[in-house]
Amino acid sequence: MKIETIINAIQTPNRALTAAAQAKIDGKTKPLGALGVLESVAVRMCAIQNTLMPEIARKSLCVFAADHGVARAGVSAYPAEVTAQMVLNFLAGGAAINVFCRQHDIGLHIADMGVDAAFEPQAGLIDQKIRRGSGNFLEEPAMSPDQARAALEAGAAVFERIRRKEQPAIFAVGDMGIGNTTASAAIIATVTGRRPQEVTGRGTGIDDKGLARKITCIETALEKHRIDPSDPIDILHKVGGLEIGGIAGAILAAAARGIPVVLDGVIATAGALIAHTANPNVVHYLFAGHHSVEIGQRAALDHMGLHPLLDLDLRLGEGTGAALAIPLVESACRIMCEMASFAEAGVRESPE
Amino acid sequence: MKIETIINAIQTPNRALTAAAQAKIDGKTKPLGALGVLESVAVRMCAIQNTLMPEIARKSLCVFAADHGVARAGVSAYPAEVTAQMVLNFLAGGAAINVFCRQHDIGLHIADMGVDAAFEPQAGLIDQKIRRGSGNFLEEPAMSPDQARAALEAGAAVFERIRRKEQPAIFAVGDMGIGNTTASAAIIATVTGRRPQEVTGRGTGIDDKGLARKITCIETALEKHRIDPSDPIDILHKVGGLEIGGIAGAILAAAARGIPVVLDGVIATAGALIAHTANPNVVHYLFAGHHSVEIGQRAALDHMGLHPLLDLDLRLGEGTGAALAIPLVESACRIMCEMASFAEAGVRESPE
Repeated sequence: MKIETIINAIQTPNRALTAAAQAKIDGKTKPLGALGVLESVAVRMCAIQNTLMPEIARKSLCVFAADHGVARAGVSAYPAEVTAQMVLNFLAGGAAINVFCRQHDIGLHIADMGVDAAFEPQAGLIDQKIRRGSGNFLEEPAMSPDQARAALEAGAAVFERIRRKEQPAIFAVGDMGIGNTTASAAIIATVTGRRPQEVTGRGTGIDDKGLARKITCIETALEKHRIDPSDPIDILHKVGGLEIGGIAGAILAAAARGIPVVLDGVIATAGALIAHTANPNVVHYLFAGHHSVEIGQRAALDHMGLHPLLDLDLRLGEGTGAALAIPLVESACRIMCEMASFAEAGVRESPE
Repeated sequence: MKIETIINAIQTPNRALTAAAQAKIDGKTKPLGALGVLESVAVRMCAIQNTLMPEIARKSLCVFAADHGVARAGVSAYPAEVTAQMVLNFLAGGAAINVFCRQHDIGLHIADMGVDAAFEPQAGLIDQKIRRGSGNFLEEPAMSPDQARAALEAGAAVFERIRRKEQPAIFAVGDMGIGNTTASAAIIATVTGRRPQEVTGRGTGIDDKGLARKITCIETALEKHRIDPSDPIDILHKVGGLEIGGIAGAILAAAARGIPVVLDGVIATAGALIAHTANPNVVHYLFAGHHSVEIGQRAALDHMGLHPLLDLDLRLGEGTGAALAIPLVESACRIMCEMASFAEAGVRESPE
């Protein structure tokens, strides 16, 4: 399906339900506002699901993977071959995201958007490879405009495939791709208007010298490419990552279906920012899973007005921070469905 | 059992295992330190369980309930009768803590340490009533020294009863008692040496005038009683709550058995502070579930060197912040048991 069709299909959730949802929470047996952030999550889930009894029966998460030409500029602590090795680790069940998805009964999928390796077809791997790695955006555009569009549409197709298979009530997005915090920082600087040094972190763990090189690399690329910050295709074309395009497309497709999406760290949030550029209404369907150590993530979340649920100093990606946050969204839904009201429980409501 | 016997039985966990546990985590397929706070939780769980394969098979949580004479001083937004009404709500399954314990398969128990009401014996309710409500510490000691000791020993007995029944690998403590943020602030001011205004919050939601009254009340009580801050019995005797004594006793008993305890908010943390006064080694078994809106909790956690796992603006008590944090401790254990090493997964380890 054409990405414009999906972008135009995104509706605003039923915000008329917000007041009724807050009134229902206020009648539960607890002091007003005592469940803090969970109350606003519950209200948002009511609006999204258009019910005062929101429910999360099934949960799915997809790790979007791709390689980055910019990794050749020495911006990562790890060699590019680790992207493909980690994809095999996901498929074998040994990575952190496998552990957390098993723990919380989240269906896990891996989408190859552009890993620079050939994989045998196998269960759990969705092949949407656009090309083997993006171009090094220090020297050339990361991908052609057609490939940028294809990445968005492939991401949407990944979501649709998972939706048909698992019918998730909530979806989460993660990433794998050596070099992708550099692409994310370039995207975040472009869309938010912040300077590269304000949005660039250490990724998997580069030293001071590597960080300085990474910032210079982004500055050079932004000067070279003159990106239109309002055009998602132009952003992806010039500095994007294939997995970041996939994430953006999947978010747009989920929002178009009215399914909420839990974001992981800086890469998933950069993908969300591209989706947000395409249609700001996606924000109504987004939950920020956690506050990443990567500083650019905060800038991107602030731009969209999102507040992270967890803050555990994570900087792993893969969707780990999103997977750990999903139970909190479930808790918020369960409050609405299972908790007694003052009247039901015979507890005195009015403060003295 | 005499509380001194329990206090003296608390061992330091096997900290010799810490280096081996950190080395094991460092060999997992992720950048060094990328799992943030979960890594330190995993290392602590290894030391506590004396294994590199820590595991949480069963989980239990107890809500300790009691009434407070100081509630008559107008320090709460709710009338004292709500304590008993909420105990019945817990037993009927309708409170927030019931919802979260069901969600995470945590065995829930309610201990009546001193509610000012008579309950029929029933499943889930542990009767350890020391007296019907504490004395108003503006006028008299909260309880006799013998009752303070009895509260600690009853709390230990509650833990032992739950341990024999459920064999939990992790235990969590919560509270119910109108007036108990006032008692907690008095305890925290006493032990940490902070001024009452630095550790007193709005509890269930009093206004500015009520907050000023609450602070004055604590100042008056601390001047009147001249508490020995190094003596847990003296603290409980003069400003304690019966449920706070129960929480302290249960924490001591759990630590003596080598079972980790997840704390809830300011009241549970005040109980932990009393246990910590009795034997600072308890801190090795404590996890701070969440950062409460109540400002005194931070002072108490700082005193013990603990950092909260969640920060969701909760101020409900009941153990809710502890219950929501337990899955994170489980995630940390699962990393150690289930995640592949670089060698196992064939992923290149050494940064370039």
